[in-house]
Amino acid sequence: MSQTDCPLCQNDGGVLLWRDAFCRVIRADEPDYPGFLRVILNAHVKEMTDLSVADQQALMRVVLVTEAALREVMAPDKINLAALGNVVPHLHWHVIPRFGDDPHFPNPVWGARLRDGPHAAPHGWVEALTAALSRRLAPARETG
Amino acid sequence: MSQTDCPLCQNDGGVLLWRDAFCRVIRADEPDYPGFLRVILNAHVKEMTDLSVADQQALMRVVLVTEAALREVMAPDKINLAALGNVVPHLHWHVIPRFGDDPHFPNPVWGARLRDGPHAAPHGWVEALTAALSRRLAPARETG
Repeated sequence: MSQTDCPLCQNDGGVLLWRDAFCRVIRADEPDYPGFLRVILNAHVKEMTDLSVADQQALMRVVLVTEAALREVMAPDKINLAALGNVVPHLHWHVIPRFGDDPHFPNPVWGARLRDGPHAAPHGWVEALTAALSRRLAPARETG
Repeated sequence: MSQTDCPLCQNDGGVLLWRDAFCRVIRADEPDYPGFLRVILNAHVKEMTDLSVADQQALMRVVLVTEAALREVMAPDKINLAALGNVVPHLHWHVIPRFGDDPHFPNPVWGARLRDGPHAAPHGWVEALTAALSRRLAPARETG
């Protein structure tokens, strides 16, 4: 897949919550999973080991700050982290708050569905999450 | 889940390929997925953000060295990385070499199965992978 064909090169990939020159955090369009975020590298790179060690650490820092913000705001039973990219081979991390009453728990969100409806997210979670990310990610990494 | 009940506290969790005082790399018992490895923290810790930043970086280093060894030996079409832990909340990373002809590609290995049989792994891959890991992970991290 070239940059011209890549949806993560052509679009943000969701509602933009934070970005710098290196990567961005978006809210995924997953109605069953409030708080399902993705950390997307801005550059079109396929695998973590295609990055320098410094860039691997910089990307994981954003992934884990995103995890911390989700734990603060959503209080999930578990966090799920995954970098798959079989369909879109452009580095992106799924950061997913999981709850005992969510549609697939304890299965992965890609596994067998066990029940209906999303977990009831706390009132104002979108604004709280955006604020928590901005606070925790400042100062932003300046260069990519 | 307490340490007494936790299978990753009581057992290696697979065929041990490498370990130090901090974590271990095992070969998973997944006949459909030759090269499916897991990096397992030795301590009973639930989330990445329960670790210090230094320990987060140390664990991700082993995960990404494992990715590099898999790319060297198996030449996969894609690497999948995931830390889920919904069933066993003890930090472990799935490091999975994926191939266009594997049973689920391009779905996650937890998703809908699309075809039979494993990808044909190269002759001697177990020995080659063990050697690649030992070479790339030496010198071992001495303390956990």
